[in-house]
Parts: sequence; structure tokens; C-alpha cells
Amino acid sequence: MWGIIATWRMAVEGITKASEMLKNGGNAGDAIEVAVKEVEDFPYYKSVGYGGLPNEEMEVELDAAYMDGDTLDIGAVAAIKDFANPISIARRLSQESVNNLLVGEGAEKFAHRHGFERKNMLTDRAKIHYHNRVKEVQETEIKPYAGHDTVGMVCLDSAGKMTAATSTSGLFMKKKGRVGDSPISGSGFYVDSEVGGASATGLGEDVMKGCVSYEIVRLMKEGMHPQQACETAVNLFDKTLRERRGKAGDMSLIAMNNKGEWGVATNIEGFSFSVATEGQEPIVYLTKNVDGKCIHEVASQEWLDEYMRTRTAPLVEK
Amino acid sequence: MWGIIATWRMAVEGITKASEMLKNGGNAGDAIEVAVKEVEDFPYYKSVGYGGLPNEEMEVELDAAYMDGDTLDIGAVAAIKDFANPISIARRLSQESVNNLLVGEGAEKFAHRHGFERKNMLTDRAKIHYHNRVKEVQETEIKPYAGHDTVGMVCLDSAGKMTAATSTSGLFMKKKGRVGDSPISGSGFYVDSEVGGASATGLGEDVMKGCVSYEIVRLMKEGMHPQQACETAVNLFDKTLRERRGKAGDMSLIAMNNKGEWGVATNIEGFSFSVATEGQEPIVYLTKNVDGKCIHEVASQEWLDEYMRTRTAPLVEK
Repeated sequence: MWGIIATWRMAVEGITKASEMLKNGGNAGDAIEVAVKEVEDFPYYKSVGYGGLPNEEMEVELDAAYMDGDTLDIGAVAAIKDFANPISIARRLSQESVNNLLVGEGAEKFAHRHGFERKNMLTDRAKIHYHNRVKEVQETEIKPYAGHDTVGMVCLDSAGKMTAATSTSGLFMKKKGRVGDSPISGSGFYVDSEVGGASATGLGEDVMKGCVSYEIVRLMKEGMHPQQACETAVNLFDKTLRERRGKAGDMSLIAMNNKGEWGVATNIEGFSFSVATEGQEPIVYLTKNVDGKCIHEVASQEWLDEYMRTRTAPLVEK
Repeated sequence: MWGIIATWRMAVEGITKASEMLKNGGNAGDAIEVAVKEVEDFPYYKSVGYGGLPNEEMEVELDAAYMDGDTLDIGAVAAIKDFANPISIARRLSQESVNNLLVGEGAEKFAHRHGFERKNMLTDRAKIHYHNRVKEVQETEIKPYAGHDTVGMVCLDSAGKMTAATSTSGLFMKKKGRVGDSPISGSGFYVDSEVGGASATGLGEDVMKGCVSYEIVRLMKEGMHPQQACETAVNLFDKTLRERRGKAGDMSLIAMNNKGEWGVATNIEGFSFSVATEGQEPIVYLTKNVDGKCIHEVASQEWLDEYMRTRTAPLVEK
């Protein structure tokens, strides 16, 4: 069995490429890197890689992580600027014996020394979003935009190796140097080839209060199906946050176990995700949480068309 | 009941100050901050705050975190330079609604804007350590020094509030921008006032492969005594690392539950820790792992004298 699952509709082209590799015996490390790069490279996705929305200083600072479920090796970068594929740098860092998580200028030095592609990641389109937002917040309250569509993936290859990966530009209008859950082990991602893996998207500041990816993998280790594990962890932590804080940030989790079974849970409306397995062509689902049970429906062609239309629609500076 | 427990002998002066506050009804947030600051300010401790050992570019980059066990608020800084008390910046960040984890230059900007004390954290003594190390590694293999004595603490006040905190200069000769487990929720620290808290010191790159602090709190939530929770988590994860990687990095964990009961486990020889509770004056223990059971012995006066003598002994440039 092989399989790959990812947060959001935006991952479907990437997991389609990955599934071709996995079908032909490709390994879970190469497949997940290719899948994430596809999302990073597409300029119209404004929350990951090229075209990602900038921080309040109009800099695109990116976070990414890679984890190998066989060795538990982790590599991650945070607040890195001007490199095309943070996921590839993260994967390369996972091969180091120490110094596996690098941030800011140090991450950039490492990437430069190792020959990773330099790229100005701030697109004209992202600049328009920035300028429009500056105008908006002058009129209303200044707070970071709630957009935080991290791509997070879990992959299983036919040899039984599992990997997890994340990539994001984080909160739009975040403070310089702000890091969310995506490069944080146990929060943004976790994977163990003997069990399965999980990854998160949502408000990183809240996800890291509960180590939700680690918790899902742990519940799968206790024998839960990925769907049950995701629902159990997300529902319980959402409840805890509401009790302790009066509110809970957006949180959506995907998971896959080492049999290729998968699960998804969210505390928001209309979370989309992409999945492909040996028995299932790449497909996009929409999910919603109805009294604790997450119901997944295949996204209609109309929804898919509208999604791409709005993402690529001309953008006018206000 | 109140109590405070911390990694290493170096924390005993800090927890002594904190215990005076706790005895007089002080809260766990103020007490733990004072305790960590005491360690940060002492120039002879070469792994935390002022006097901390630099990275390979001879810069002292510091990591710190603070967590509130009532609200689960987290604040953390990583790879921050030239500020006197990273723990106070971390605690201040825990009060923000988002942008709670800041790294590098962004963290420095935040600290500057909020008036935190600027300080060149690189001492003459640390420079001698650096130069000596450069000479040493020219003669042998170049690799980061294994010293990584993070201060990690868990505190309970008489109102039942719990906090956790960490502060470290990380691996000596680390790469610029390298971040370990100390500012990472679930790995370097975790606390929930309804259960208890835990904190780690050791090889951060390995600790974050297992989210060990989160796991210990979880085991306490299931009903385990802190000692049993620490031993269970450390022994199991040490075993997992050896099976998967052939070796396990140094790892020492301290924990306290919301009744003031505490526990400690390590996979190294002679790990020291400091603890004070309502019924126990501040005291330093040494512990060792004997076939999975961690045996704690009160440090002798001779050991304590020798500790301070070696820390403050004149240092000669080679």
C-alpha cells in the first residue's frame, strides 16, 4: 500500500505528481518533497512559498519542515527569506547530525552554502494584497489577517516508509520573525513509520498549545483509526481551549497510518483536503464537523472551478 | 502547596529566591521568571544567558520560553542576541494574542520596542572558551561541543497556578540560527495547571523527536506520579532512539504535578537538579538511571563546593 494526504485543495496537483512516483515504487521522502514543491512554486497560492503573503514589513518569511518516520530525523527552517523551496532546505537539514532546525539569517546562510535556489519570493500580486491590507487596517482594527493555509502532508510508500512535511508563509501581516506551528515537531507535524503521521493547518499559536499532531499519532499507536484519532484529538483540544481561553483558533488536522488508512478533523467550516492512495485516484474532499463527527464530501466540479477562478482572478489595488 | 523544580545545580540560587516569593503567596509566573533570571544573570554559567557560550560565529544566540498552565499561553524567543533576559521577553510575548514565538532579528525588534535591557551577552570568559575550542577542533574532529545545560523549570503556586520556563544558549559552536528544543512547546517544556508540568535539558535535536515534555504531562494526566511519568517517558524514548538510530542523545527531564509531587529521569550519569516545596527547603540532588529506575541522592557539600570551584576557576587561553 502507498498513499499521500495533504491539507487543502491547493495540494492536489502536488499529490498527483507524488502518487505517480509512489505508484512506480518511489520513496516517501522524494514523493513528499516533490508534492510540497509543487505547492510552493505555484504563484497564486498566497499562503505557501512563491506568492506567499508577507509579514508586516512586507517581507515573505517562510517556514517548512520535513520528518522521516523511520529514523525520526527532523529538518526545519523558520523565518527564511529569498529561497525558492523551503521544503528542500528542510529535508537537507534533516540529514545533519545536529543543527536540524535553523531560523532566519542562519537558515539563509546554510541554504546559500548548500546551493539552494535564490528567489525573490515577493510577487507583484502579494504586494497588492499587502497594500490593500494596509488600507483596510487603517480603516478598521489592526490585527493579523486570519489566513493561514499551511500545506501539511503525510506520505506512505510501498516499502512502508512514512514521511511528513509542511510549508507556509504563516500569518499574513505577522510580526517579523514570527514562527507558527509548521516547523515545530509534534505541533505542525509528526510521523513514525511504525504507526502513522499527522499534520496541521490553522492558528499555529493555538495548535502548539496542544501538540496536536503528536497526540494524533499517539492515539493511532494505541490502536485508533486515523479518523477516530483526528476527531478525538481535535474535539478534545478545541474543548480545552474554549474552557481555558473562551475561544479556540482554527485547527484542521490530516493523518494517515502505515496501512494507508486516513482521517481528517477540523473545527472550521469547509476545510478542504487532498488524498491519493493505491486504491484511490487523487481527489479533493470538503469536510465539516457536525457535533464532533467530521463528514467528508467529494468536492464538486463547480466548487473546484470556482476555487481556481477566485485564486487566479485579477487583483486590483485599492 | 507550592513548589518549584529545575534542571541542574545552577538553578538552586534562583529557586531559593522563587521559594521565598512562593512562601509569601507570590504567583508562579513571577516566581519562575525571577528564578530563571537569576541563572541568566550569573556570568559563570556558560550555557544560559550572560556568559553563555557562542555559536560558531562567536555570537551568543539565546532561546527561552514561558508557558502559563492556566491559559496555556506560550511565549518564546529563539536565536535572539544582545538582550539581558530572554525569559522576560518570552513571558511578555505570552501575553500577545498571536505572534507568540519570535526568532532572530524579529525577536530583537520586539524586545527593543518593549524596552527590554540591551546587553552584550558575550563575556571575556566565553571568548576564551571559544578560542580554546577553535584550537581544539583544529587538532581533532570538528563537531559541536556536547555541552547543553539548559535551565528548565516547573513551578506551582499556592493558588494552584502552574508555569514552565526554559532558557539556554544552546549547543556551543552551533550553527548560526540553530534552535534546539528549549523554545519548542511539548519538547523543551509543557505545563497544564490541571495536571502538572515538565521540562527538558539535553540534546534538543533528539528531545524534539519525541515531544518528551508533553508526553510526561500526558502520563501524569493518566494518573501517574511524576517520578513514574518521567521514567516511563525517558526510558521508552531512549529505547526508541537506540532502536531507530543506534544511539540516543543526552536527555534529562524534570516534572512536578499540581500537588507539588515531583519526579526526574535521565539517560546520563550524574544529572543534577534543584527543588524546593512547601515542605522542603531548596536542595540539590544528583541522579542516575539504574536499570530504568532513577535514584536521587542529595548532593554532598564536597560536590557542591567542587562544582562552584570548577565553574569559577581562572580560565587560561590555550
